[in-house]
This record gives sequence, C-alpha cells and structure tokens, in this order.
Amino acid sequence: MADAERVTVAVLIIGDEILSGRTQDTNLNFIARYLAAFGVDVAEARVVGDAREAIIPALNALRGSYDYVITTGGIGPTHDDITADCVAEAFDLPLMEHPEIVAMMEARGGYELTPARRRMARVPQGGGLVKNPGQGPPGFSIGNVFVLAGVPAVMRGMMEDVAPKMRAGVVVSARTVKVEGTGEGVLAEPLERVAKAHPKLALGSYPFFGPDGFGANLVIRGRDAAEVETATQELVTALEAIGAKFMRIEE
Amino acid sequence: MADAERVTVAVLIIGDEILSGRTQDTNLNFIARYLAAFGVDVAEARVVGDAREAIIPALNALRGSYDYVITTGGIGPTHDDITADCVAEAFDLPLMEHPEIVAMMEARGGYELTPARRRMARVPQGGGLVKNPGQGPPGFSIGNVFVLAGVPAVMRGMMEDVAPKMRAGVVVSARTVKVEGTGEGVLAEPLERVAKAHPKLALGSYPFFGPDGFGANLVIRGRDAAEVETATQELVTALEAIGAKFMRIEE
Repeated sequence: MADAERVTVAVLIIGDEILSGRTQDTNLNFIARYLAAFGVDVAEARVVGDAREAIIPALNALRGSYDYVITTGGIGPTHDDITADCVAEAFDLPLMEHPEIVAMMEARGGYELTPARRRMARVPQGGGLVKNPGQGPPGFSIGNVFVLAGVPAVMRGMMEDVAPKMRAGVVVSARTVKVEGTGEGVLAEPLERVAKAHPKLALGSYPFFGPDGFGANLVIRGRDAAEVETATQELVTALEAIGAKFMRIEE
Repeated sequence: MADAERVTVAVLIIGDEILSGRTQDTNLNFIARYLAAFGVDVAEARVVGDAREAIIPALNALRGSYDYVITTGGIGPTHDDITADCVAEAFDLPLMEHPEIVAMMEARGGYELTPARRRMARVPQGGGLVKNPGQGPPGFSIGNVFVLAGVPAVMRGMMEDVAPKMRAGVVVSARTVKVEGTGEGVLAEPLERVAKAHPKLALGSYPFFGPDGFGANLVIRGRDAAEVETATQELVTALEAIGAKFMRIEE
C-alpha cells in the first residue's frame, strides 16, 4: 500500500449462487479489466456465501490489506440480501435510510414502496452513494469500500462511478509473445533467464495446444513501459537462439 | 466441520492471469457443480496471484477452516509455477521428485526431460498422486489439500480422481420457482415468511427482466428433500395468494 505507483483493490463476491455453481461469476473479470485502464490492480478476490459470519471477517481482512475493496452482490430487497447490514457491522456504524435514495425511489414511481424495497435505501451512516445509471437504486461507499450490485449489467454501470473515486496508479504495460510448436518444458529456461534479469516485471507463461502441437503465450507485464520493451526484445532474441517459432502480439 | 451431513471445500485459484482479467476463471463453477452431486459444498473461494506471500497464508487459512481445499493453477514447468513449492512450505515438508511421475514422463517419451519438466514431478514428502487422464503429469494431494492444474480441460479430468477421495455428504435438493411479472420488492415478504419457517433451508432470490417486466427465480435448497418439497408448496400457496404468475422448475 506504500507503493505510490501501485494501487490495489480486493474484490469480495457475495452470493450463495456463485458458490453453488448456479451462476458463473463474470464480475471479477470485468472489474479487473476495467480498473487496469486506471492503473489499479485487483490483488485478491474472495467469494463468500450470504452469511454474516462469512462476509464480515472477509471484508475486515480485505479492507485492512488493500487500498480499496469492491463488493458485488447482496444489495437487493429480499431477506438474503444482507451486504449493507454486514458492511455497517464491519465498520461498527448504524445503517440508516438514505433520504436521497428514498427520494429517487419516490420520484421514479411505477411501483409500491414496500418495506422490502425500502431496505435498498439503507446505507451505513456517513456513506456516499455510487451512481446507478440504470433504473435501480444506487450502490454506496464507506471508508475504502465500494458496495455494488451483483447483477453484471448493474454492476458494470456502477463501476463508471467507482473508478473516478479511486486514486489512479501507473498503468501496466504488457506484451505477449506467442510461441507455436515449442512447449513450456523447453521455453522455461530462456523465460526464467529474462525474468531473473528483470525482477520488477512479471513474466507468465500460458500453454495451449495448437495445430503445431504445444505452444505458449509468454506475457511480460510491468509499470515501466521501456523495461517491458527491453525485456520483450531479450526474450525474442533468446527464442531465436533456440529456434522457436514466435509472433509478437501487442496487448 | 463437525456437521456430519455437510462436507465443505474451499477452492484456491492461483494465477496472475485471473486477477489481471486476462483469463476468465471457469474452474470454480465447474468444481462447485461437480461436487454438488457428491453432497460436497464449496463454502469459500479465493483468487490469489503467483506469489508466495499470497499463496501460503491463504492455503493455511483455508485448510484449517474447511474439510478440504482444492487448488487450481501454478503447477506447470515455468518459473512462475510455484504452487508445489508453496504447498510444501505451508505443510513444512520437503519437496521431493516423485519416482512414479518421473517414470511416467520417461515412459511417455516424445520430449526431452528438461530440468523445467522435472519440476512437474515434485510432490511434498508423503503426498499422493491425483490421476491425470490426459497426457500431462498428475496432480497431488497432501493432508486435506488437492493440488490440480489450472487449465480447465486438465483440471476437469483430475476432478474424476478427487471426488472419490473425499468423504461424501448428503446431496442438496433444490427447487426453483420462476415468477414472471412480479418484482422482488413484492416477492420479498412471502419469501421471507417461508424462509423464517424453515431455518435449515436456504432460500434465495435471483431477479431478471423478462417479457412481462421484472421477475425472479426463487430457489429453495436444503439437505432434507421432504422439507424442501414442503417449503416449495408453502411458497407456491403464498404466491397464489398475492396473485403472482409462476412456474415450478425442477433443478
């Protein structure tokens, strides 16, 4: 967290439906790609069920370890939507009906403002709102935590209002070198040599099976674009030396 | 963990490519659905990067809290594949080359047994093998931890050998009642009433927007199939009472 260039986020995905396999999560992937453009790294993610004893300790661990936390899920009107209650309890704050959300709900009309719908107007005392460009109620923020909907279309809209509220980091540069017909068992040695020469960069290898047999995408990532470029050149030279067939891909 | 009927698993997904958004994880969803058939619940999941200081504490926290842990990713031949090293360190065991894996690699032939490939033969002392029905090396198990590949096709094959090694639980029964044209704000009250009458069941509501406007899938889950059936009947009666349009769906 002391690193001025690196801004870290943890994503806390809340919902029995993700853990039971009923729903395939796609929110983590969206958030990671979206924040990358702002130089903000997703550093950890957790998936927990709709239970106080799971949500509160996870939230407290994550908000103490990373610059920000984004939660998704559990902010609807039904009894199993307990995220706001848990966030308030984690911060030891009372949960209050936010007059601005109630006013929005009343202005929108078209439905009865049932006690269940009013649950969605509750925000921990002192919390701010996260705009929802769709038709539902907003999310909220408190401390370094942003509380978003779980439905992907709604969550994505809310992210438009989250990113500008975060400190921006230095954007990560990445280059991918795609190698065909040579497996990781052979590529590992030159890759590791380049990785050791550039300890500030992250070099990863992602194997695939293609028309020429095993290959791998070798990915070089780092916040110093010039060093990423240098390391990519070094890797290309090392691949030429072992006779590997490669293509350079921008990312 | 003391619950004889409920067997819990945590999934630890290891890989920078998931956190950067380069790759969409699908392993959690597969594992959750696969184990459900054995009455085994995924109770938590975490995603961490390829870093010792992230992997080891997460593994130690999870293996102490749940019946089993399944890890995916980081068992390839390249320098960023450090899962085996981290598991050995978490268990404070030496990492040894497993003679059976080396023999498999030698028997298979068709490639040079480079030092990088030999890395994939390393298992913490006393660990067992997890069969790989594909062409690569096996995964391994140690204590209550199963260490699997990250590539989905390989991970899925390995799961065939993991499930029989776990204690089976009582399979969860689930019923879904799909309600069209009535939103959660109205459904919340009858749903909560049924939920309160059946504290051992989990009732969830998953909203959607359909041709008749807002609707929701109301899911009733539990290990007592008769109670799930009773609660579903009660919910159907309550939905009839508020004039909601619904269909019952088996799951």
